[in-house]
Amino acid sequence: MPNAALQQPAGDNPHVTLITPSSPMATPTHGGRAKCLQRLVRLDLPVPRTVALSFDTVHEIAGGALPDIANVIAQFDEGALLCVRPSSEDPDWGGPGAILNIGMNDARYVDLSERIGREFAAVLYLRFVQAYAVHVARLDPDTFDEIEDMGPGGLSAALAAYEEEAEEPFPQDPVEQLSAVLTCMARAWEGTTARLLRQAKGAPMDAGLGLVVQEMALGIGAGECGSGVLQLVDPDTGLRQITGRYLSQSQGREALEMDFASLFLTRDPRGPSLEDQAPEAFKALIENAELMRQRLREEMQIEFTIENGALHILDGIRVPRSSRAAVRIAVRLAEDGIISHEEALLRIEPRAISELLHRQIAPGAHRDVIGSGVAASPGAATGKIVFSSAEAQASAARGEHCVLIRRETSPEDIRGMHAAVAVVTERGGITSHAAVIGRGLGLPCVVGAANMKFDLRKRKITTADGRSFAHGEEITVDGTSGQVLAGAALTVEAALDDAFQTLMGWADKARDIAIRANVDTPADAATAQNFKAEGIGLCRTEHMFFEADRLTPMREMIFADGSEDRMAALAVLLPMQRADFTALFSIMEGLPVCIRLFDPPLHEFLPSDRAGLRDLAEALDLPISDVTERVEALGEYNPMLGMRGVRLGITVPEIYDMQARAIFEATLDASRAGAPPVVPEIMLPLVSAKREVEILRTRIDAVASAVKAERGRDFTYRLGVMVETPRACLRADDIAQHAQFLSFGTNDLTQMAYGLSRDDAGRFMSDYVQQEVFLEDPFHILDIEGVGELVAIGAERGRQGRPDVLLSICGEHGGDPDSIAFCRAVGMNHVSCSPFRVPIARLAAAQLAIRETIGSQ
Amino acid sequence: MPNAALQQPAGDNPHVTLITPSSPMATPTHGGRAKCLQRLVRLDLPVPRTVALSFDTVHEIAGGALPDIANVIAQFDEGALLCVRPSSEDPDWGGPGAILNIGMNDARYVDLSERIGREFAAVLYLRFVQAYAVHVARLDPDTFDEIEDMGPGGLSAALAAYEEEAEEPFPQDPVEQLSAVLTCMARAWEGTTARLLRQAKGAPMDAGLGLVVQEMALGIGAGECGSGVLQLVDPDTGLRQITGRYLSQSQGREALEMDFASLFLTRDPRGPSLEDQAPEAFKALIENAELMRQRLREEMQIEFTIENGALHILDGIRVPRSSRAAVRIAVRLAEDGIISHEEALLRIEPRAISELLHRQIAPGAHRDVIGSGVAASPGAATGKIVFSSAEAQASAARGEHCVLIRRETSPEDIRGMHAAVAVVTERGGITSHAAVIGRGLGLPCVVGAANMKFDLRKRKITTADGRSFAHGEEITVDGTSGQVLAGAALTVEAALDDAFQTLMGWADKARDIAIRANVDTPADAATAQNFKAEGIGLCRTEHMFFEADRLTPMREMIFADGSEDRMAALAVLLPMQRADFTALFSIMEGLPVCIRLFDPPLHEFLPSDRAGLRDLAEALDLPISDVTERVEALGEYNPMLGMRGVRLGITVPEIYDMQARAIFEATLDASRAGAPPVVPEIMLPLVSAKREVEILRTRIDAVASAVKAERGRDFTYRLGVMVETPRACLRADDIAQHAQFLSFGTNDLTQMAYGLSRDDAGRFMSDYVQQEVFLEDPFHILDIEGVGELVAIGAERGRQGRPDVLLSICGEHGGDPDSIAFCRAVGMNHVSCSPFRVPIARLAAAQLAIRETIGSQ
Repeated sequence: MPNAALQQPAGDNPHVTLITPSSPMATPTHGGRAKCLQRLVRLDLPVPRTVALSFDTVHEIAGGALPDIANVIAQFDEGALLCVRPSSEDPDWGGPGAILNIGMNDARYVDLSERIGREFAAVLYLRFVQAYAVHVARLDPDTFDEIEDMGPGGLSAALAAYEEEAEEPFPQDPVEQLSAVLTCMARAWEGTTARLLRQAKGAPMDAGLGLVVQEMALGIGAGECGSGVLQLVDPDTGLRQITGRYLSQSQGREALEMDFASLFLTRDPRGPSLEDQAPEAFKALIENAELMRQRLREEMQIEFTIENGALHILDGIRVPRSSRAAVRIAVRLAEDGIISHEEALLRIEPRAISELLHRQIAPGAHRDVIGSGVAASPGAATGKIVFSSAEAQASAARGEHCVLIRRETSPEDIRGMHAAVAVVTERGGITSHAAVIGRGLGLPCVVGAANMKFDLRKRKITTADGRSFAHGEEITVDGTSGQVLAGAALTVEAALDDAFQTLMGWADKARDIAIRANVDTPADAATAQNFKAEGIGLCRTEHMFFEADRLTPMREMIFADGSEDRMAALAVLLPMQRADFTALFSIMEGLPVCIRLFDPPLHEFLPSDRAGLRDLAEALDLPISDVTERVEALGEYNPMLGMRGVRLGITVPEIYDMQARAIFEATLDASRAGAPPVVPEIMLPLVSAKREVEILRTRIDAVASAVKAERGRDFTYRLGVMVETPRACLRADDIAQHAQFLSFGTNDLTQMAYGLSRDDAGRFMSDYVQQEVFLEDPFHILDIEGVGELVAIGAERGRQGRPDVLLSICGEHGGDPDSIAFCRAVGMNHVSCSPFRVPIARLAAAQLAIRETIGSQ
Repeated sequence: MPNAALQQPAGDNPHVTLITPSSPMATPTHGGRAKCLQRLVRLDLPVPRTVALSFDTVHEIAGGALPDIANVIAQFDEGALLCVRPSSEDPDWGGPGAILNIGMNDARYVDLSERIGREFAAVLYLRFVQAYAVHVARLDPDTFDEIEDMGPGGLSAALAAYEEEAEEPFPQDPVEQLSAVLTCMARAWEGTTARLLRQAKGAPMDAGLGLVVQEMALGIGAGECGSGVLQLVDPDTGLRQITGRYLSQSQGREALEMDFASLFLTRDPRGPSLEDQAPEAFKALIENAELMRQRLREEMQIEFTIENGALHILDGIRVPRSSRAAVRIAVRLAEDGIISHEEALLRIEPRAISELLHRQIAPGAHRDVIGSGVAASPGAATGKIVFSSAEAQASAARGEHCVLIRRETSPEDIRGMHAAVAVVTERGGITSHAAVIGRGLGLPCVVGAANMKFDLRKRKITTADGRSFAHGEEITVDGTSGQVLAGAALTVEAALDDAFQTLMGWADKARDIAIRANVDTPADAATAQNFKAEGIGLCRTEHMFFEADRLTPMREMIFADGSEDRMAALAVLLPMQRADFTALFSIMEGLPVCIRLFDPPLHEFLPSDRAGLRDLAEALDLPISDVTERVEALGEYNPMLGMRGVRLGITVPEIYDMQARAIFEATLDASRAGAPPVVPEIMLPLVSAKREVEILRTRIDAVASAVKAERGRDFTYRLGVMVETPRACLRADDIAQHAQFLSFGTNDLTQMAYGLSRDDAGRFMSDYVQQEVFLEDPFHILDIEGVGELVAIGAERGRQGRPDVLLSICGEHGGDPDSIAFCRAVGMNHVSCSPFRVPIARLAAAQLAIRETIGSQ
């Protein structure tokens, strides 16, 4: 490669030499390892001399054009052994393995035998021959792996085997050796298999590879020699603790691979340690590690070698870490003044902290996977299989943990889900009922687990490989990975530790958009409070009517002849609803609580099977034929687009009247002297025209006046609209005339913008995402360019209609970082999401505000 | 009323004197009758002297402030008798009846007895006393109706009865008489009942009344005296024919009321005529009538009186007319050069001509109404009741007309609907399946007839008053009024006569937007051709798969394991589809035919009842449990928002491949040398993302290339998108990259914009429209401000993406005049509607273009 150029680095440090083509295509890059080594050298750490080959250079090598290899070798001390390691942009993308001890040949073997003894020299030479034979010359690995004698005898055998297999003697010229090693590593990177593998990990098509040629510090030889790995923190907990291993007479990462033989680093009752064995090298190592933490502003994993008692730092990479450790590390670095609070916040991937909020399968625990589906709600739990909500409740009553298995869940299963520790369904996608409720409850949930056979009649599930799991058998659900496991897998606790709380506190200071929670029950409300939601952004009221003592009056109400009968049935429900709301208001202690009035079609509350119809006929004292006919008459072709929401409010106004009364009475009941006053927000669902709001506002205002007069006490409340039809977005200026707030329901809005039912989308969504028809499932990631435009139009027009209107979103997207960015951009006041997504949203919002500040500086 | 002013008209005619308040509130108006009389006077017709009181004046009279009545009377000849008639803006709004012979008193009785004889004078006086007593003095009508002697004896009795009842003698002062008459008529107009009645006919809240005081020409007296009504056309047919009646010794409209005694006008073999009896007066009458037609530019109904042989024209009103007569009259006026073609077009209400396209219940025919519902598809037909499609087909096979009665219809009923002469359903609204298909087929249809009980098991319907109609009994369906009648009602033929065709020809010259038809079958296509549609704007293909010989391969396709089996099943369907398209292309003779690829969810093709499942299992040779399970698995929560349209095209691509091949092969089969080439348009339904179009365009292009290669012949086609999701509107610029045309499906767009299923909306739509939540049913009248904005956005962005993109709408709204106005405004190339709405659309489009030209002049 005649046009290769050798550059000295800009600083005064001669240790890292950069090699790039003389006319590079772009700014030359040498990869992460090269960059780190440069930084270590600048810190004056004992890093062996290094030459770094840029991406372009390596690409040219793969094409057959080598730089001046003799010149590369000339950068090192005469007779030094070399190693070559990959240096890609991201170490996770893989790459060829390091090749050590390049330069060993018969002559150096003689030299080294004199310096460090023949046995050690033979090990070094033999290892190089083995690696070269297998990886560079591509000879039969078995031949070389068979050699067990690691001394001079083995070496002779290896050299002979090489000559026999390769039909030429083992190359003696270091230039030839290094050339071959570099070519082989460069070409391995560009092979199709390697490219596909790294693309699967997120690497771009044209990801490059740099190579680092480094002088070996010999971990094998006379005096204290060896190699090891060190980090100052525990990678699982993030707690400050020196961890790592050291192995005398070893090279590379052997200390980790052979930990039965390796030493602890600090003094340890369990065995000998480096601190005992080489106290000075240990002291230097710790000092260097502390320096690296300070100056690289990160917890680093250090690869080091001790050669005859002297410490060499070969490399440093960012400590791999669990999510919980990531939080603690970032917080500690900030508390130690090494990074700012803002930087600590930016270092945590918001989605990763969802792991912290739930019990998880322990890292490395054995997994006996019996089925899998969509990872619909994170966390892990173990329980006995049950196939119905009734069984789940019975099981909970006995104090036994149970996993609820259903073909799919419906609102009737809510109590069963409350009673279960996890849920698995055969059908449904990321926004199916089970998934949404599961996330709301923080219940591990796997949906669409269609690779198991669900036999609900025989009360068993059968796996693809024919194993059966019957009612009562124990399984573990991992909602984080979407797996279902046999038996009880080892789990670890949720990690809401002090570091987590500290980080969240910083997030709350940084962010500029409020975060509320979608809360349906007092238990949810407690979770929301625990996660410091700033109020309830969406309280759905319909589940309240599914409880056993309420279903009968509810059905009486549905079957009532005329307004009077209906009101009589609703009068039974009133005190229960009032108690529901009083509980929520009390828990939320004056934070805003936004209650969506009754939304679902009435037929959801009616049975469809023969037995249920018979029970209903009995309860209502009606002939079964009557009941059947009326249940059928209430059926709908497209319930999502039918008689629900505000349409019920207009045509069966008694329901909303009752709910408004319950809310207002609860407002007074929960308001206590000295405490902040309760200000309820009442939200109308499925609005498509201004007049709907106008009519219902009049009724609700009348109820408020009546309650005030009866109780002789005053209160205030806000009335708003859930904007979830495209028409409501377009007419938001009109609608805002009668609404103090507009909350965008992005689930329904997505359904209507696409003409796509989330309950039915599962059947083709995976096809669609695979074929990139949709880049993402729009129920999972907000479709900014379609649904988002509707929201933006609605927000803008809403403000036109009422400049002080409060804007928010309350769909499932509320907790998604990209969606929060969108909501900030269109000027929303808050987002509302599942309680378990509140911390994620708090962090994501903080990062957005920080990035905007940085961007504008 | 001191401030009343007497104005002489601007011209030189002293016959009509206008009275208004001296400071009128607005430009004074005197109503239609006064206006017409002024025009007649200007034509020098023998109109008796007239004083017209303006709306304001009459309003003041009702409030008690009368103008100077003596002065009014002074406008007339000394001793003249007067009449007062109402003169509102629109005669259809009703008003108080005319009061004749005002001014009769004892003194004039003596005078008149001398002039015309005592008997005649007594009749005039008696009639006035009767009218005054009942309508002005509000005495008991029975007392005065009892008087049978119309001579002097009766008069004495009446005067005595008046004095007894009113406790005062009959008023003798003409000023007092006229004041009382005017006050009474003015107050009658302002009464609540009268106001509500006229508002029901479309009058505004503040509609005013003028009163016309006219000198009486006495139809009773010596010499040839009498009164009559004449018009030059037949009001039912519009054909030129002198019609009307004359009655000697009569007043007002008695000639019509007592037609047993009245004369024909022209010579008539059936009896004596005015032409015989008073040839000179008759000649003058006809001359006057012809003059009125020429100069008032309208066919007028003339009220006339002959007094002692001399003709007086009392009044003229526009001839009331049937829709068919309206067309003929307008066309004749234009052909006679009296009005322009444009004015003839503007005089016909587009919606009214839908009557002409269908057989109708004869005007005035007896109606034994047994039930009613939504008038879903116009026209009338009589047939025997059947309760299933199979019975309908059997009935048609026997050559018997039948009416199909269903709870609601589904695609499986299509063949039954084809076989029936009319359809009645218990459920559904204006856009239910039955309604849409009914309009498409031109089949009279009443839907949502919930006031009858449908007992499908016992095969009978029961009316609200308990009458039963069983299978086989004859009924008549009036889809124009929404009534169901017992037995066979008298009907009249459709009226596609020469005048209609002439008018439509003028419309086609005037309009500037193309009209196509939505056509599913060859029969539809023939209708579309008959109504001169300029092509097919929407051909739905799914009904083609419901035919008996196709359902089995269709179901085999649905149940196929893998692509190969699926293609094998589709191969059976290919020649059938090809034949379908060949037939359509041949009928349409080179006009564009836009075919929408398969749209509905597959489960619509599967049975849901036990018997159907058993048959299916047999046909497919599968165990019934398998079939049941797979049918259930295909079920959807919201089929409208599910796996249908382009989503099937992407995930089960073999169906669209087959359809594209059938279209292309039919294109070649139907293209004949010398004839215009067939250029099919292929439309993709339910698109929500550009990539859907991109993927399918690639596949369809490949099919086209294959067919061209196999046949060795070339053809062209257009590929476009049915824009029916809100997202497709928003992303129309993207989508147009791959689409040569965009056709807006306003039905689905309305469903999705509102979040409202048209199949389920019936349950509350009437409540909603009654409470004015929605001003109109948006499935009936396009919601311009919501759905319309989406369409406008889509049209604008579509053109941004592809400047030459062809734009159209093809929903049910396509035939609605307001919607056509909208489509012109957003620059669409065509609208497409049911074949039977094509003439309406042609006329409406012409009117819009004409009005725009007038407006811009």
